[in-house]
Amino acid sequence: MMEQGILTIMSGPSGVGKGTVAKALLEKTKDLVYSISATTRLPREGEVNGSSYYFLPADEFRKKIDRQEFLEWAQIYGNFYGTLRLPVECALSGGKDVLLEIDVQGGIQVKQKFPQAVLIFLLPPSQDELESRLTKRASEPKADIKKRLSWAEEEFEYLKLYDYAVVNDRVDEVVLKVQSIIVAEKCRTWRLK
Amino acid sequence: MMEQGILTIMSGPSGVGKGTVAKALLEKTKDLVYSISATTRLPREGEVNGSSYYFLPADEFRKKIDRQEFLEWAQIYGNFYGTLRLPVECALSGGKDVLLEIDVQGGIQVKQKFPQAVLIFLLPPSQDELESRLTKRASEPKADIKKRLSWAEEEFEYLKLYDYAVVNDRVDEVVLKVQSIIVAEKCRTWRLK
Repeated sequence: MMEQGILTIMSGPSGVGKGTVAKALLEKTKDLVYSISATTRLPREGEVNGSSYYFLPADEFRKKIDRQEFLEWAQIYGNFYGTLRLPVECALSGGKDVLLEIDVQGGIQVKQKFPQAVLIFLLPPSQDELESRLTKRASEPKADIKKRLSWAEEEFEYLKLYDYAVVNDRVDEVVLKVQSIIVAEKCRTWRLK
Repeated sequence: MMEQGILTIMSGPSGVGKGTVAKALLEKTKDLVYSISATTRLPREGEVNGSSYYFLPADEFRKKIDRQEFLEWAQIYGNFYGTLRLPVECALSGGKDVLLEIDVQGGIQVKQKFPQAVLIFLLPPSQDELESRLTKRASEPKADIKKRLSWAEEEFEYLKLYDYAVVNDRVDEVVLKVQSIIVAEKCRTWRLK
């Protein structure tokens, strides 16, 4: 039988650089596939349906919730976000490693359903750096940035529930660390059949 | 304050290739130091005191046991083997990673004293391969080989107490996996202060 893939969940506060790290990681890691989230929020400039996200109308999203089609879902800043269960399960059972880039509450929801998932918390080099990164992101109004910063503080409370923490100071080093974590996790004795 | 090093313990049955892996690992891993064991057994050809082992007379070894100077010790095939506590603690507190290559019972003794130690079990590709490797080792009489093989079976019972298992099929791959395990362990949230 094919060896089951590793489900890696990467979380961290807004502005920490999850997207940049995920992109670099996927480019440099063979057999790692990205789990595309579904959301009801509107696409930002450059985002493509079915690639960045599955952009769903709210009523369709709610139907999928009712049908238990989500591995996790949440309502954040008034929009729904979620991870569809089926594509993740298919990839893992096909021996692919899967990367989920989701918020901490979603990560913990998934861990409850998949205890074998690996939770990685991406940390900013400092709180100042996080503020500066969020401010540079021109796409959002100031009030939203404030909301994100206060939410980031709440997210840090979940850090201890995560398996690993990686400081995002240099993307190439973060990539090497996350790759090492996946290699190491494949060697864990409790995963032996 | 300097970050504490990681104590990695590599165990596995006689003939699995622990020595070869340890040598390659030390050559290729910056800041990893080898913990030299003490023993009362006689040096094999080419072994140097203070480099391969600290070769100690039995009475001196016993005195050090009484003074609690060992992190672990055991009597195997009529000889004493042990790991002196002080050099390991000094290296770790100086930020060095330390590699201990010891038998499974020793590994578990150390884990009890250092729960933060990382236990890696080196597995042979197969039981046949293990027998063939032991038989090729010309330095030992046949009766000893038999004793080692039956002991190997007992050792496998301890596998589930180990954190990681790595199959020693190709040394360079084992080195990469053990290096990954050390990198990953440094990112574990429970190690954060």
